[in-house]
Amino acid sequence: MHHSFQPTHYFNTLGSHEPVLKIKSGDTVTTTTVDAAGCNHLGEQVAPRGNPQTGPFFIEDAEPGDTLLIRLDKLSPNRPQGWSAKVLAPNVVNPDYVTDLPNPQDRLATWQVDTKLGTASLDLPWSNTKRLELPLEPMLGCFGVAPTRGQAISTATSGEHGGNMDYRGFKEGVSVYFPVFVSGALFFLGDGHALQGDGEIVGTGIEISMDVTFSVQVLKGKQSFWPRGENDDFIFTAGNARPLDQATQHATTEMHHWLCTDFGFDALTASILMGQAVRYELGNVFDPAYTMICKMPKRFGSVLLEHVHVDQK
Amino acid sequence: MHHSFQPTHYFNTLGSHEPVLKIKSGDTVTTTTVDAAGCNHLGEQVAPRGNPQTGPFFIEDAEPGDTLLIRLDKLSPNRPQGWSAKVLAPNVVNPDYVTDLPNPQDRLATWQVDTKLGTASLDLPWSNTKRLELPLEPMLGCFGVAPTRGQAISTATSGEHGGNMDYRGFKEGVSVYFPVFVSGALFFLGDGHALQGDGEIVGTGIEISMDVTFSVQVLKGKQSFWPRGENDDFIFTAGNARPLDQATQHATTEMHHWLCTDFGFDALTASILMGQAVRYELGNVFDPAYTMICKMPKRFGSVLLEHVHVDQK
Amino acid sequence: MHHSFQPTHYFNTLGSHEPVLKIKSGDTVTTTTVDAAGCNHLGEQVAPRGNPQTGPFFIEDAEPGDTLLIRLDKLSPNRPQGWSAKVLAPNVVNPDYVTDLPNPQDRLATWQVDTKLGTASLDLPWSNTKRLELPLEPMLGCFGVAPTRGQAISTATSGEHGGNMDYRGFKEGVSVYFPVFVSGALFFLGDGHALQGDGEIVGTGIEISMDVTFSVQVLKGKQSFWPRGENDDFIFTAGNARPLDQATQHATTEMHHWLCTDFGFDALTASILMGQAVRYELGNVFDPAYTMICKMPKRFGSVLLEHVHVDQK
Amino acid sequence: MHHSFQPTHYFNTLGSHEPVLKIKSGDTVTTTTVDAAGCNHLGEQVAPRGNPQTGPFFIEDAEPGDTLLIRLDKLSPNRPQGWSAKVLAPNVVNPDYVTDLPNPQDRLATWQVDTKLGTASLDLPWSNTKRLELPLEPMLGCFGVAPTRGQAISTATSGEHGGNMDYRGFKEGVSVYFPVFVSGALFFLGDGHALQGDGEIVGTGIEISMDVTFSVQVLKGKQSFWPRGENDDFIFTAGNARPLDQATQHATTEMHHWLCTDFGFDALTASILMGQAVRYELGNVFDPAYTMICKMPKRFGSVLLEHVHVDQK
Repeated sequence: MHHSFQPTHYFNTLGSHEPVLKIKSGDTVTTTTVDAAGCNHLGEQVAPRGNPQTGPFFIEDAEPGDTLLIRLDKLSPNRPQGWSAKVLAPNVVNPDYVTDLPNPQDRLATWQVDTKLGTASLDLPWSNTKRLELPLEPMLGCFGVAPTRGQAISTATSGEHGGNMDYRGFKEGVSVYFPVFVSGALFFLGDGHALQGDGEIVGTGIEISMDVTFSVQVLKGKQSFWPRGENDDFIFTAGNARPLDQATQHATTEMHHWLCTDFGFDALTASILMGQAVRYELGNVFDPAYTMICKMPKRFGSVLLEHVHVDQK
Repeated sequence: MHHSFQPTHYFNTLGSHEPVLKIKSGDTVTTTTVDAAGCNHLGEQVAPRGNPQTGPFFIEDAEPGDTLLIRLDKLSPNRPQGWSAKVLAPNVVNPDYVTDLPNPQDRLATWQVDTKLGTASLDLPWSNTKRLELPLEPMLGCFGVAPTRGQAISTATSGEHGGNMDYRGFKEGVSVYFPVFVSGALFFLGDGHALQGDGEIVGTGIEISMDVTFSVQVLKGKQSFWPRGENDDFIFTAGNARPLDQATQHATTEMHHWLCTDFGFDALTASILMGQAVRYELGNVFDPAYTMICKMPKRFGSVLLEHVHVDQK
Repeated sequence: MHHSFQPTHYFNTLGSHEPVLKIKSGDTVTTTTVDAAGCNHLGEQVAPRGNPQTGPFFIEDAEPGDTLLIRLDKLSPNRPQGWSAKVLAPNVVNPDYVTDLPNPQDRLATWQVDTKLGTASLDLPWSNTKRLELPLEPMLGCFGVAPTRGQAISTATSGEHGGNMDYRGFKEGVSVYFPVFVSGALFFLGDGHALQGDGEIVGTGIEISMDVTFSVQVLKGKQSFWPRGENDDFIFTAGNARPLDQATQHATTEMHHWLCTDFGFDALTASILMGQAVRYELGNVFDPAYTMICKMPKRFGSVLLEHVHVDQK
Repeated sequence: MHHSFQPTHYFNTLGSHEPVLKIKSGDTVTTTTVDAAGCNHLGEQVAPRGNPQTGPFFIEDAEPGDTLLIRLDKLSPNRPQGWSAKVLAPNVVNPDYVTDLPNPQDRLATWQVDTKLGTASLDLPWSNTKRLELPLEPMLGCFGVAPTRGQAISTATSGEHGGNMDYRGFKEGVSVYFPVFVSGALFFLGDGHALQGDGEIVGTGIEISMDVTFSVQVLKGKQSFWPRGENDDFIFTAGNARPLDQATQHATTEMHHWLCTDFGFDALTASILMGQAVRYELGNVFDPAYTMICKMPKRFGSVLLEHVHVDQK
């Protein structure tokens, strides 16, 4: 079933809040998200700043111990302007370089976002570069499910439940798996970026409101521990923690575990294969928890392709 | 001038050791490297284990404050077998997962390396996967220059001088820039891998001896602080430290600094561009110092291409 | 006013929950806490495990931007037995030492706690040590206030709001300052330890239920950012984060800021003094967020004593 | 035998340098050290800055696999002035606080050091504090032995071999144990501080030249892996690494190992005892490698005292 849902309020935590819509495994939802500052497609602020979330969507039959599969069918910026911070965050440069960072009077830049041309552009009147024009690559910065133990976790950060991961790979066409911690899973989404560099090292992408269509599927009895994903070329896992070393441990452990439980590898073969074939990508290195992505290329022969996840077929 | 150099001894530290050959800026050298265990193309151990290095090569005119440009013209495994560890290193998984890792009697695997087919293959008699066959991607794990302050730094680790970075991108065709800390720079190379996953998370790539051809160029008066590189698609910087957070700070700072000093960006424009366009890749997360790579795509329009590094043309 | 409060239910998050009692600045409360597993003075489990908290107490007049001062007037274990884990946590030893840790069938030990003798003792029938007898040093592992942004934060971890800091210095007689984030502050307490080593490196102290008496005072208009404390010899600040490096940054920054705003130091003098006089102590290195304490000795002359915090007199 | 040794040159790395004196196990040496900037008791610069070391002393019979015991018999500043940095290092405060740090024109302060009164004092003409007067607590910031693998490690950092640990506990009367990595151990010492706060958070103690007397003992066949120490109240271990989490792992592992091999504890008893009795202290959080100290109080009953290290009696 295909739902159209227009949000009337938003949440700044992922928690066990009152659902805005009940849907079923297999359903598709078309909705909208506001930007990180709570502004909608008209640029009106309709929610408090800090990655306000659309949702939560209650998915029937989803129970703790299941996995929720979200496919991002369509992600489209729905207004012609986005904004970004301008200055490298002080935590991503050497401590003794912080005082060398530029200190512009206006900390934010307004980009022109042209979805037809597929570009984000910014005039730089002070610079001999004159103008930046970069290809759009729309993504969701913050989305996930209600966490365990009755927690309500700020949309500033991330964890086993997803949240503010700010990973470029969460874009149109990707499938994302979340552990289910509460009845109905309670799926939230928001914080669209028209474009973002790895690491979100200025502290923002090009922040923008979005039209989003997503589909849900409940994988009954399939247990996962951290967010996972899949696209045409890779399966991947996300670890969210500080420092990056710990995020890397979470993502690597989850990948090894996943290869063994879902893809038919024994622990030793999975370990050997990962050693020579694994890839890593950075989500954010700005938020309270950093995000590391561990990827396994499907192209590495029949090995992985022939074991491809049945739920994806 | 093109030199052919056959090493007779090797070093397990990068330091101000007696040069094995004096060469000039613009010269090319064809030589060989032994594998991480000190074994040559015949599989004979000719040096103590631990990434023994060919060199050092003294480059005339290279003085502290200059930058040494090394182009890896050719990297070719020179024997049909390489070896790897099998088990994920305990520091790359969750601490409470360490006891779940496989514990094979034989910790090492011997891979068949076929440079004609371009594959590394390994039989897995115990496994329902039966056999792994992965595409070769030869690279140098450990190379660099003599460090400052009279130090002799173990080839187990890395720093501003390069060393054991274990980054997949250090492969044929790449240009690598090292800060010069001592007269003659003293360039070392070794630790060839037929293939390696990001992070070197089992603690080795597929370790193998190599035939290597490289060219050198001294960039007089050009100061750099960390290893840098360039390939067809990216310019990049390497930060070497623990934790990854600090390696990320070093690489990010060096990229910002490089964009401003060599590519004509003002500090604010460089910061805005990096925020939305930067990419990161992992070198190793196994050695005493981890390695993070900060990359800037050249394809992001005329912006970077028109400022392309004149020394590379 | 002195209140006696007997809890009937407990919370496993610190959040904006319904208050159990409204009190005033200057009041004193005598109450009880259950142990980390939810067991009371009779050893009956009356709450779900995971540091269930007594409270929240609503303190009238406490508003965001104020500071809440809690004095722990009395902390007394109220049953003769406590329990601890036995084995060093895998995250506090070298990753390659994890498989060398002991692996006892029973992971928990039951200690005899004698408040008259002031000892915790444990028989070790397997060991040539025969018996451990250690001096009691009762403390609260987890206490704090409701966090900002509508969050409900698990009692497993800690943050600006306090929480599961597991610092030995939170014992009888200490004064603790918390930032106020919500109206009424909403103070919670629990997780008593009869004794604990620095770092809580086996993952528990000697866990026990307690009789607790505390007094509250609202410091109107005094803003703080992290938990602070004061005892006869030191003023101190707590930073809660991973890695310890970041916890250290939070605690150090808060101390410098505190010295400047409340003790009359200029920024440079505070910096010089801290450089030569500061002390650090570890809270936990086990929980999701670690805890570092930054201490300034009062004994360093008139300098600090003459500026002593007027609210403490 | 008691040697008097007056150094004529100094080293800025700990490595296998030519010994300045050969001594025997049981010998005592009285010598001098210059300050971190290479200045002697007259304030004359006699060595390049960066913790220049007196030594190395070759200790006969010390072989790899042994442990070298150094007792610091006497540490006495030998001039009336020491210097310190003034400003908190940018890496010890929150990244967004770096730009709030004071930025004095003169980065260094000159302290009056009075060994008779036992004080270090500094006038603060700009400050309402007027003057700081702190009790002396002379210590060695950097000392240790030649490392393994032919390395020459900068005196800016530390490792298994000791080096620039900057721990307040390395003061008169302490016994320090170093692993022996090369024949003769090759002991170095320098970098005296008249006083230092935990963490060396301004990047220096009160830097001063010293008269030092130390005694050496070779513990044949006793293997250690990291620096260890002992004073009247504690045995302790030092872990040197970044981040502090890893330094903590090294120190904790070494303490557990030490308790089991030298003090007769089984692994489980050592683990239980450490959990409830261990203490941690910070060495430096400024140098490339940070230093964490893991301490076990001797006072915790007969348990530890009766197992007291026989070599110390």
